Amino acid sequence: MVLEFRDIINIFKENDNFLILTHKSPDGDTLGTGFALCYFLRNMGKKANVVNSDSFPDRYSFMYEEYTPQEFDIQYVIAVDIADPQLIGSGLAQYQQEGTVDLCIDHHISNKAFAKQTYVDAKASAAALIMYQIFRYSGMEISDIIAKCLYTGIATDTGCFKYENTTPAAHIACAELMAYNIDFSVVNRKMFDVKSRGRIAVEQTVISKMEYFFDGKCSMIVLTKKLMEECGVDPAEFDGLASIPLSVEGVRIGITVKERHENVYKISVRTTEEIDASAFCQQFNGGGHIRAAGCEIHGSLDEVKAKLLEEVGKVCG
Amino acid sequence: MVLEFRDIINIFKENDNFLILTHKSPDGDTLGTGFALCYFLRNMGKKANVVNSDSFPDRYSFMYEEYTPQEFDIQYVIAVDIADPQLIGSGLAQYQQEGTVDLCIDHHISNKAFAKQTYVDAKASAAALIMYQIFRYSGMEISDIIAKCLYTGIATDTGCFKYENTTPAAHIACAELMAYNIDFSVVNRKMFDVKSRGRIAVEQTVISKMEYFFDGKCSMIVLTKKLMEECGVDPAEFDGLASIPLSVEGVRIGITVKERHENVYKISVRTTEEIDASAFCQQFNGGGHIRAAGCEIHGSLDEVKAKLLEEVGKVCG
Repeated sequence: MVLEFRDIINIFKENDNFLILTHKSPDGDTLGTGFALCYFLRNMGKKANVVNSDSFPDRYSFMYEEYTPQEFDIQYVIAVDIADPQLIGSGLAQYQQEGTVDLCIDHHISNKAFAKQTYVDAKASAAALIMYQIFRYSGMEISDIIAKCLYTGIATDTGCFKYENTTPAAHIACAELMAYNIDFSVVNRKMFDVKSRGRIAVEQTVISKMEYFFDGKCSMIVLTKKLMEECGVDPAEFDGLASIPLSVEGVRIGITVKERHENVYKISVRTTEEIDASAFCQQFNGGGHIRAAGCEIHGSLDEVKAKLLEEVGKVCG
Repeated sequence: MVLEFRDIINIFKENDNFLILTHKSPDGDTLGTGFALCYFLRNMGKKANVVNSDSFPDRYSFMYEEYTPQEFDIQYVIAVDIADPQLIGSGLAQYQQEGTVDLCIDHHISNKAFAKQTYVDAKASAAALIMYQIFRYSGMEISDIIAKCLYTGIATDTGCFKYENTTPAAHIACAELMAYNIDFSVVNRKMFDVKSRGRIAVEQTVISKMEYFFDGKCSMIVLTKKLMEECGVDPAEFDGLASIPLSVEGVRIGITVKERHENVYKISVRTTEEIDASAFCQQFNGGGHIRAAGCEIHGSLDEVKAKLLEEVGKVCG
């Protein structure tokens, strides 16, 4: 049976004591969708909590600063923006077991349908966009904080409407959400413009060490464990650097090489429209999307770089 | 007489041989609006050219790569996104004279009404948004390249929908423009993500020299002529750095001090919601907007910094 919006509204109406699961290493979309749903259910007179295997990052505190967990015996479990039970995380391992999640609302085409019921719209720019459409369909009131959470989910998952996954529906939803008191420009500043001093130091370091190949068509940054230790900042500051090599004018393939263990490197590849990142990574048994993909390569750093550059030569030569 | 969209359409219909003026140091909005209008008029069977006091920057070439100037005797002059005849630039000084510009279409509240007829919508996020609304009102066809130019104008003037000046109308217009073949994510990458190697070097340098005051609530970068010469890059790479000091977590007022001449410094101020940048700069006979303002201070660098920090102490102390 294909789930429709009215079925989801009925689930909200007919149940109570909801636990909302968000994915590990939480981002703006899973938290925005999760807290929006929590506040919406509470406004319906239901009890609901949001949980995460990790802690809620400070930078998203504007979404949960007035949130207090409620006490109740869990009756219904909803996962949002979670494609795979693995992503629930070890801190909530009990919900990785089959039959423990009642409903999953998601926008990943790779969703494994692990929940008892699943609503996936792979064309939606964000899980928060689906949630907004459900709320609007219900005709029930959306409060300012709900609107702010939903806006944040859509804005963060689309890179502030910059990326290919941005749809007309995402723009229209945000045009409507701007009618609420959401301080969207303050949200966007926090999400896209502000960096910690640690992060700034990390970016300074990796940019200064960036290498160029094939007339500047390829750029590469290498994050060894030694380098990461020397920076003396929280290791989390080294996440999400993969877009940096591609930000240089003329670069068509930007590669980030990150040491995982001795002789094991995680490779992130970003490309412009001339090169298929997914096909590139498939050469190393990896995969992903056409402009963003990844793989793992074993060997010494020099061997790993040589293997990568041999393949780069075929697409940039 | 207040000009309405139908009057503007009639102007397009009743005239020919249009010269379209864009503002000096051209940005995505003035060029997007200008080229969109040029292509629209040509599609109406009119002759039209776009001009600029400076050259058209390479980074916007996707808007004009199929543009060729036409030969004709100019009959009607339209300025787009130009608030003040000064901004026409010295290369087109003849149009700074009163009575030389027939029509101005703009979105700046400061528009000086220098043209014979002026259409200003100060609530519009971009001049390109007004132009889109005019085209749509006309019912005439919008081609892909016109849509791409208009999208670029709206996206660039709103910081890709990030800034306070973004309106629901801007989102809705772009949702509609995405129905055309505009490769918006490629445009956005060019406009927002790609930097020249020279620019990267400049940013590395200024960030490494950034100073912090008042428990990190104030940050400051200083661009002396000496520093700019030492970097060895095109001086244009030093434009638009003013947002960098405010991008550091915890900073409420970010100040950029740029040496103009000996003992003359141009000050750019950016603030978060806690501080009024315009009021701050008024202390130095400058002004601007509530989050972005500027002024000029005379004196040695040490004197200029001391004067600034004295005022910063009053708002950050």
